[in-house]
Amino acid sequence: MPPRLFQCAHRVQYADCTLGNHVYHARYLEWLDEARGAFFRCIGAPLAELQETGTLFVLVNYQLRYRAPARYDDLLTIQVRPAALTRVRLVLDYRLHSAAGAILLEATATYACTRLDGKPSRVPPTLALALGPWLAPEGAGPAGGQPE
Amino acid sequence: MPPRLFQCAHRVQYADCTLGNHVYHARYLEWLDEARGAFFRCIGAPLAELQETGTLFVLVNYQLRYRAPARYDDLLTIQVRPAALTRVRLVLDYRLHSAAGAILLEATATYACTRLDGKPSRVPPTLALALGPWLAPEGAGPAGGQPE
Amino acid sequence: MPPRLFQCAHRVQYADCTLGNHVYHARYLEWLDEARGAFFRCIGAPLAELQETGTLFVLVNYQLRYRAPARYDDLLTIQVRPAALTRVRLVLDYRLHSAAGAILLEATATYACTRLDGKPSRVPPTLALALGPWLAPEGAGPAGGQPE
Amino acid sequence: MPPRLFQCAHRVQYADCTLGNHVYHARYLEWLDEARGAFFRCIGAPLAELQETGTLFVLVNYQLRYRAPARYDDLLTIQVRPAALTRVRLVLDYRLHSAAGAILLEATATYACTRLDGKPSRVPPTLALALGPWLAPEGAGPAGGQPE
Repeated sequence: MPPRLFQCAHRVQYADCTLGNHVYHARYLEWLDEARGAFFRCIGAPLAELQETGTLFVLVNYQLRYRAPARYDDLLTIQVRPAALTRVRLVLDYRLHSAAGAILLEATATYACTRLDGKPSRVPPTLALALGPWLAPEGAGPAGGQPE
Repeated sequence: MPPRLFQCAHRVQYADCTLGNHVYHARYLEWLDEARGAFFRCIGAPLAELQETGTLFVLVNYQLRYRAPARYDDLLTIQVRPAALTRVRLVLDYRLHSAAGAILLEATATYACTRLDGKPSRVPPTLALALGPWLAPEGAGPAGGQPE
Repeated sequence: MPPRLFQCAHRVQYADCTLGNHVYHARYLEWLDEARGAFFRCIGAPLAELQETGTLFVLVNYQLRYRAPARYDDLLTIQVRPAALTRVRLVLDYRLHSAAGAILLEATATYACTRLDGKPSRVPPTLALALGPWLAPEGAGPAGGQPE
Repeated sequence: MPPRLFQCAHRVQYADCTLGNHVYHARYLEWLDEARGAFFRCIGAPLAELQETGTLFVLVNYQLRYRAPARYDDLLTIQVRPAALTRVRLVLDYRLHSAAGAILLEATATYACTRLDGKPSRVPPTLALALGPWLAPEGAGPAGGQPE
């Protein structure tokens, strides 16, 4: 059974855009982060609850491939897919699509699981369980590595 | 002796702009806030230190008059002037000028002095003392009410 | 018949928050602006289309009354209500409510209708017509001025 | 002669921070971008002028390694160093240091030189000349080309 795929929508706002009707490059990261929050809520583990129980996911590595610009008022789709999970790290792949299906941005983010004081911590077992059905099979390579 | 006037500079960045080479309206507020931080540092009361000793200034009212747009790469001047100080409130007037001296934005912000838990608190006496030389004389009206 | 009321939802994101789990004051303006875009779309006049036909609404005055802070992960309601419409200006009232119904922020924004070059322009008649059913009756005062 | 090194300062603002006194991860990108603007100005080729003469640098790839968080009110140093220059691409290395000298963030950004319509374009010869003294020697490896 292929892994499940989470996606949500984002309408490009004035506040997202800069000169020449380009979305400002840092702004995309906020959308991906918002999609991450929606994904964790979807699997029953809202980030706010994780934080209340002492678990944070701290960004340690981010790779972003900007392939085409989004424009004001575009209605976009953001996909989130867990690519890897270890005892203390989570890797998420993101993809941003235009309404026409073009890939605008691909990103891979690595998060370290920590306690509130920043010390490394093990990914909570219930969370690992919830992430399972969404994880890409081993050896599948990065998002985009194969036909979908 | 007229009150002293604090000012600092801001260079308009890509991240500040939106479509049509306008600065996004919410972005101006960040510059004014940055100028506020520089002003408090200048009078010997950095906001970070006030916070460490349990004092916050919470925004309760903001009036903004947008008079002309700033553009990408403009070098602007921001003026900060305490307009009123009571036992528990501080009013700051802000003015944003273009390099040519045109007024782009006038703003008046009212802050409540609180403790970290949000409860109202008295403005620390040493801070009130430090603000004194910068306060507009009584009856001077809002910034801009008289020739400078 | 009372005027119609537009409202939409906003989930508070990490990117919206600052120290001490307060939403950063400038960030609220982005949500109100997003709600404005949703309102214009709802009445059949998306801002992007207005802009394509040469009409802009430029912010000239903004009054914001911050009454209580929103927190991370809160699900909020934003109300938008046209308060006044003249040949060349539009006034919108905004209200931000918590899930429990508390008013967190009230704002009134005055926009000048302009052409793309910034010159004043008449509000397009079809837009004025579309705004009609949403306008507060004359003499109703600002949002919040009377029981609802 | 070793390549020259450009650096500038950034004071962390309230608007930069999120919950738990972390700087929001997307916000760092704005600082690096601001440093890029200052660097281009320093070498006599302000981005605004390049744009006026029809040249844009469009971000195509961004790698970010977050090593330690910056905090509110920290005074940081940002280093910008051209790592590679081809006929149509520019690679910049960024490093963000704390006042104590710790590396907080390392980033590598690849920009494509384009015309205003987004079509690929050759890096202007005068710009290439101006970048020369700043370029890392071939084979120098990543920014900081020495053991850490």
